[in-house]
Amino acid sequence: MRVKVYLAGPEVFLPNAAEIQKLKAELARAAGFTPLVPGDLEIPPAPTKHQRGLAIYAVDEGMMLAADIIIANLTPFRGISADVGTVFELGFMCGHSKHVYAYTNTSRSYYERILHDHYGGKAGLRLDGRMAGPDGLSIEDFDMADNLMLDGGVLRREGRLVQREVPEADRLTDLQAFKECLAIAAKRHLA
Amino acid sequence: MRVKVYLAGPEVFLPNAAEIQKLKAELARAAGFTPLVPGDLEIPPAPTKHQRGLAIYAVDEGMMLAADIIIANLTPFRGISADVGTVFELGFMCGHSKHVYAYTNTSRSYYERILHDHYGGKAGLRLDGRMAGPDGLSIEDFDMADNLMLDGGVLRREGRLVQREVPEADRLTDLQAFKECLAIAAKRHLA
Repeated sequence: MRVKVYLAGPEVFLPNAAEIQKLKAELARAAGFTPLVPGDLEIPPAPTKHQRGLAIYAVDEGMMLAADIIIANLTPFRGISADVGTVFELGFMCGHSKHVYAYTNTSRSYYERILHDHYGGKAGLRLDGRMAGPDGLSIEDFDMADNLMLDGGVLRREGRLVQREVPEADRLTDLQAFKECLAIAAKRHLA
Repeated sequence: MRVKVYLAGPEVFLPNAAEIQKLKAELARAAGFTPLVPGDLEIPPAPTKHQRGLAIYAVDEGMMLAADIIIANLTPFRGISADVGTVFELGFMCGHSKHVYAYTNTSRSYYERILHDHYGGKAGLRLDGRMAGPDGLSIEDFDMADNLMLDGGVLRREGRLVQREVPEADRLTDLQAFKECLAIAAKRHLA
């Protein structure tokens, strides 16, 4: 039976979403996997926006349940962290004991992004000895790519989190780190 | 046997984290549950920051596996979406077929937050007919509290997502919506 990989990431929001998703699916097929891509199936018609959202969720959850592996694009999206939809999917697959791989197109740590991109470098020690922003919220400092639950979830089940520095203009579309995830997963699961 | 509830949220980053978490745990106990609170257990010493992060993850995952229910605080955190650590935990519990409840201390939709808070109201129709920001990224419009995977994950398993408008100064600490989640969960699981 073919090994199925769920391709999670914020690509769905790109103007050329279909093109990038098709490219990712082709790369997954070339590596020997059967790709499952959110948005690939017909969504049944729904009477309200809210019900349409739930219908899309149902299709995506069905694909995750059918998949053996997830490769999640955790590149920061509209802020300092990964896209929350993708993060939910990563958590879901960890909770379901699937194989998990992830990548991010920045090599800067979560700590650096909170400190510099969110707080503009304005941070200091709190009374309890932790680094915090001017709003008093503590700044995670674990040499990780994102919040420790994301890195931890991947590494605890022997997945891999590939970090690669990509110029900002190509950060949401560059597929080199995705290809590295595919190569690692192929070696493990298609041997 | 007592029903165990995992209390997820960005409270861990607050200057008064211990105090708020203690309060949430007391409220959960008063409602009849056994609370499991991230950060409540001793974290074993670790030689590097990265390994310490992984050790915290391991403790938190253990608590999630032991819990029957999650109540996740999805109030926007350092941006337009929920804290990604909490989102991972919500996904994990959905993937593990636990009971899920969530709340957010804003009644503004995800669509409004992307459009106004992230893009400053500057958005327009893309060639494919979708609303998008000046960067070309499409804006989700499903009358939902956050990304559709979060609302969808909660509602698909008959959980509840309580939305309540709280003034900004109290948004990360107000516990009224948390109490509503506790009351709903108690009625269902402690009857």
